[in-house]
Amino acid sequence: MVKKFEEKTVSTETIFEGKIISVQVDEVELPNGKLSKREIVRHPGAVALIALTDENKIVMVEQYRKPLERSLLEIPAGKLEPGEEPAATAERELEEETGYRAGKMEYISSFYTSPGFADEIIHLYLATGLEKVENPADGDEDEFVELFELTLEEALECIRNERIYDAKTVFAVQYLQLMEKI
Amino acid sequence: MVKKFEEKTVSTETIFEGKIISVQVDEVELPNGKLSKREIVRHPGAVALIALTDENKIVMVEQYRKPLERSLLEIPAGKLEPGEEPAATAERELEEETGYRAGKMEYISSFYTSPGFADEIIHLYLATGLEKVENPADGDEDEFVELFELTLEEALECIRNERIYDAKTVFAVQYLQLMEKI
Repeated sequence: MVKKFEEKTVSTETIFEGKIISVQVDEVELPNGKLSKREIVRHPGAVALIALTDENKIVMVEQYRKPLERSLLEIPAGKLEPGEEPAATAERELEEETGYRAGKMEYISSFYTSPGFADEIIHLYLATGLEKVENPADGDEDEFVELFELTLEEALECIRNERIYDAKTVFAVQYLQLMEKI
Repeated sequence: MVKKFEEKTVSTETIFEGKIISVQVDEVELPNGKLSKREIVRHPGAVALIALTDENKIVMVEQYRKPLERSLLEIPAGKLEPGEEPAATAERELEEETGYRAGKMEYISSFYTSPGFADEIIHLYLATGLEKVENPADGDEDEFVELFELTLEEALECIRNERIYDAKTVFAVQYLQLMEKI
């Protein structure tokens, strides 16, 4: 792990511990010896799924995003539970959010979403060989989502009209374009 | 703007107002009439730049990311100042972070980075026709960055070895691959 320009922690103040995120302010010593402050959001991390049906449609969920005061069409995703392996989260979220189980689940890659102020990481999977589950496990009781299945062309149109508007989903659609998976 | 499954705000509690982010907890009324809470990080938004030299190299900056306790190689980026147009932020950050000015600056697209808990949006630009500025404007005094110029192959290798590891930069590299810009 590269630590160039490391900022040593002088002190940490916990500001908030919520259900999903926690917030802290670290006083740090900069490479030039001066002091500064860093505002940091801690997040448990998440998985996201490119789930392709046998008809090569991309499974998406529409849900309300309170920080933006609007709904977005996104690939299925969900937070890691404590101690849960990302691959297990991927299986669980696919069933809870979409009612599908995957015949094949492949890891694609991971990335930090906002490294300037948050430690959230998203692990991205490709789920294929989808089959509808008879009695799928329920998701979070405060989550309301509607399922959609889009062709690649439809997804590209949703990016153009900003119904798809988040980093993991535009990345996923671009990934499918580039890999010519569908 | 689609508002499907809208969550109406019942009350808002401000938790923290920092230099860069602020944090609030909203009590919301769900579509089924039940109440829930949403933890929300407010961020001013940012621009990021795919800056290509005349030799078709991608300009990147390495910097320490305190939330991750490591440094990352990223495309140049910076926060919007109050009232600043994204295109002006893009010009300013390019000069401050890289010492370049762009002959041509094209808007590519925008995306929310973490719509589940934050309102951060990144506006992505393509900067070409780069020329070194004689006495470039200084950036933030608490930012330490090192410049790199990478071929597309080198950037892909940096994704594989996780030195490039954030959403906007992996998106940018994939964009260049797909568009065959270089």
